Amino acid sequence: MIVGGVAGGMSAATRLRRLDESAEIVVLERSGHVSFANCGLPYYVGGVITDRQALLLQTPASLKARFGLDVRVNSEVVAIDRAGKTVTVANLADGSRYTESYDALILAPGAAPFVPPIPGAERALTLRNIADVDAMAAAVADRPDRAAVIMGGGFIGVELAENLIHKGFEVTIVELAEQLLAPLDVEMAALVEKKLIANGVRVVTGASVTAIAEDSVTLSDGSTLAAGLVIAAIGVRPETTLAEAAGLELGERGGILVDEHQRTSDPAVFAVGDAVVKRDVISGAQALVPLAGPANRHGRLVADVIAGRAASAKPVLGTAVVGVFGLTAAATGWTEKRARAAGRAIRVIHTHPANHAGYYPGAEGLSLKLVVDAETDAVLGAQGAGGSGVDKRIDVIATAIRGGITASELADLELSYAPQFGSAKDPVNMLGYIAENLRDGLTDTIQWHELDAELARGVQLIDVRTPSEYAAGGIPGAINIPVDDLRDRLDEVADDVIVHCQVGLRGYLAARTLAQSGRRVRNLDGGYRTWARL
Amino acid sequence: MIVGGVAGGMSAATRLRRLDESAEIVVLERSGHVSFANCGLPYYVGGVITDRQALLLQTPASLKARFGLDVRVNSEVVAIDRAGKTVTVANLADGSRYTESYDALILAPGAAPFVPPIPGAERALTLRNIADVDAMAAAVADRPDRAAVIMGGGFIGVELAENLIHKGFEVTIVELAEQLLAPLDVEMAALVEKKLIANGVRVVTGASVTAIAEDSVTLSDGSTLAAGLVIAAIGVRPETTLAEAAGLELGERGGILVDEHQRTSDPAVFAVGDAVVKRDVISGAQALVPLAGPANRHGRLVADVIAGRAASAKPVLGTAVVGVFGLTAAATGWTEKRARAAGRAIRVIHTHPANHAGYYPGAEGLSLKLVVDAETDAVLGAQGAGGSGVDKRIDVIATAIRGGITASELADLELSYAPQFGSAKDPVNMLGYIAENLRDGLTDTIQWHELDAELARGVQLIDVRTPSEYAAGGIPGAINIPVDDLRDRLDEVADDVIVHCQVGLRGYLAARTLAQSGRRVRNLDGGYRTWARL
Repeated sequence: MIVGGVAGGMSAATRLRRLDESAEIVVLERSGHVSFANCGLPYYVGGVITDRQALLLQTPASLKARFGLDVRVNSEVVAIDRAGKTVTVANLADGSRYTESYDALILAPGAAPFVPPIPGAERALTLRNIADVDAMAAAVADRPDRAAVIMGGGFIGVELAENLIHKGFEVTIVELAEQLLAPLDVEMAALVEKKLIANGVRVVTGASVTAIAEDSVTLSDGSTLAAGLVIAAIGVRPETTLAEAAGLELGERGGILVDEHQRTSDPAVFAVGDAVVKRDVISGAQALVPLAGPANRHGRLVADVIAGRAASAKPVLGTAVVGVFGLTAAATGWTEKRARAAGRAIRVIHTHPANHAGYYPGAEGLSLKLVVDAETDAVLGAQGAGGSGVDKRIDVIATAIRGGITASELADLELSYAPQFGSAKDPVNMLGYIAENLRDGLTDTIQWHELDAELARGVQLIDVRTPSEYAAGGIPGAINIPVDDLRDRLDEVADDVIVHCQVGLRGYLAARTLAQSGRRVRNLDGGYRTWARL
Repeated sequence: MIVGGVAGGMSAATRLRRLDESAEIVVLERSGHVSFANCGLPYYVGGVITDRQALLLQTPASLKARFGLDVRVNSEVVAIDRAGKTVTVANLADGSRYTESYDALILAPGAAPFVPPIPGAERALTLRNIADVDAMAAAVADRPDRAAVIMGGGFIGVELAENLIHKGFEVTIVELAEQLLAPLDVEMAALVEKKLIANGVRVVTGASVTAIAEDSVTLSDGSTLAAGLVIAAIGVRPETTLAEAAGLELGERGGILVDEHQRTSDPAVFAVGDAVVKRDVISGAQALVPLAGPANRHGRLVADVIAGRAASAKPVLGTAVVGVFGLTAAATGWTEKRARAAGRAIRVIHTHPANHAGYYPGAEGLSLKLVVDAETDAVLGAQGAGGSGVDKRIDVIATAIRGGITASELADLELSYAPQFGSAKDPVNMLGYIAENLRDGLTDTIQWHELDAELARGVQLIDVRTPSEYAAGGIPGAINIPVDDLRDRLDEVADDVIVHCQVGLRGYLAARTLAQSGRRVRNLDGGYRTWARL
């Protein structure tokens, strides 16, 4: 008996059929559709995906024909009798109720969009299922005023912002935090924010919507915004009502608690997907990671366990990606802010490589960031933003983390190279070289957010770019000594000095020269571009 | 003292400067240019790269200014006196000779294009350096007849074929082997061959050029081809003349033998790049791998060793990629043919996934292949051909191999997913799921090249696709029972049966159903598409 028929639930159902032709498999889905493409919903709103049918990957009939599944939509499980091993099902189509028994119960109810308890909240649209997307698409088609406010600047909020711009809306994102996209650090999220603004999205951070009126919203700073359309994309909360009512144990952060076999505190009840607690791969701590990948994997795993096969769930990294007006932003593992909050000693690396050889036409810029455990050289996480190829580098690093490849060992990865695909030293290799140099003490860096304090102490700052780059804009207080002139102008350099260039490479060369002259030298990590958030 | 100023030599020179400001570093380069973009040369011939200057990444003057290097072009080292630690340098500009002493000598002479010893061979152009590319560009501009024969269908031959088509040539590739692109297996290389043919390239395999006349070539089958332009792209041979004359030890396959510190049999002499023997990561055997990545890495490593830093070279996977008329083909590690030749028990997996969610516009097809050690579940190699995203998947698998991630564990990789970038179950995850099912005996597959023998034995073949797919073309001898009808038509199925579908997925479902009914069933790996090389 499976409660919920999208990613995790349906993966469990189909895998179980492949393992056992004779199993009686019932899938109970509260909404009117199963196995739909929930990650595609924002793009249907924006008209990027034009065929509604394309969102409906399977139907109860197709699942019956291929997998012999008994799939019932509009069927909400309202109670679990664990002692009797039965569930009470409400047929939402006709209002009737009935009882079904189970040998094994799999809960895959997902997570519900959070709508803040503010006046007018009932007017906020959310985006979770096909009924939601139909309602939102209708609202988008209907609104003559073309002003939309999106509460929340996470992945879905940002995707919806782009899609509503496609539909001609004036769009404002209102985000409570000081940055968009919590899985990124602030200077990386700033690149996404810039891209949104450049494409006409208004971004308001550090504020929330406190009230929703008929055609406007009020913000926490007292201002009002026109808002014919209001969307809540603040985040999701695990659907635990049913589990909780059944007395199943919950985790620290509110999800259903499961063991490495996705078993709840009741051995006959399993749970998977956005509703359950997962384990963080770095710390082993409980985590809520509402992503399709782990949901699918864990659904499949439950089928294995039920069929008596050895299998256990892996902790999750939480790799994620989003596309925004042609810019790609992706992340895996821990951010710098998370590592610092956890008190880890870390090394941080920013680079701004091209996605392929610069001499081949069409190279696009990337900004990559690596967070490294300073004691073990383990990769804790990575982030990227920029042109085509960000997802590739984050996927490679996510794989490296899983394989226990250290930050320095990224230098040795053999990645495919031809001039239209990469560089002989791929951006990931370059992260490895830098990590190795930091690990070995060949270079010392300073982060963009540490610079002001050092300058206030009076530390010398040298811009080692060319005079024309220096003239075009730089960091206040820097003097200019181009790297190629440095060996001849050593007498102008103080004993304690910070160097910077555009992206960090020339600064590194300068730092090596200066370090060998006995000076204390630090290179501004990521150079002017990271500092200026370019 | 460094002999050779491109990838490996220049990586050694610049790293050594970063490690040691006081080192005297001399780079002796036989050609007129250092640090040029050799992987870009075919694209300059074809006019994709229009700016010749873009190929010249550095000059002796720029390297002097930034790194304090003494770079001498047109300077050929003609002899090494190992006892006296000197080299004899021929100044090719003025014909003079002189002697220079060294403390450490780094040989980075590269590999020379092989030109077969056939009549007229002197008319065959090769592509190695800037002088070569200038000559080829001039020949391309000059030939009024517009017919070109490329001897050799390796990466460079294939890249040149595309570029000469761009220039309006009639192009024939003549390849001695039965397939193009030796780093791919034959059925994967066939996809590249199809793409070339679809774009007007003639491909002749299993033949060689036996003589070159003024405007034509003669092939080994006696036929002649018009050929105003003849290019030798058959392969490269390590440049070992100098090393051999100096009495340095060579490896089994002709390259300069080095240890894990890139040290030759003389402790004061190091060697890196295409001229040296590398170690294969799978077998540990000696290998010649003429790729830029390892050359750069090993150059950097020699500088570390000379500067007294701990470092040792890693064995190589030989990851490589090529773009052909918008199709990407890439490979890492071992091919099936290599594994079989080595007598390894292997499992082979072919899949044909889309590069991202099918419901999002613009999805492109990929063909992926995984070669797995049947005893250990280790990934031995992978290949891909198709649309955008092939390089990403091969890079992820190359990283997994390096990290010791088994084939089955590919299922657990957390790769970035949004509908425009991938799938919730990424193609790499799918390879892992299939590998796990094979490892666990849940499914048994048969390869395309094993099918004929089984059919000759009289084994039943069932096409489980839809009747319309079956009618549109299938494998001779197959009967059609669509997968969704199979449970109702079990009585038509023999006790020993092979099933197939379009790509392998429905065949797997059918195989699971049939296996549970007690039959011996094998699924045609990669389905009709691999069999038909689609």
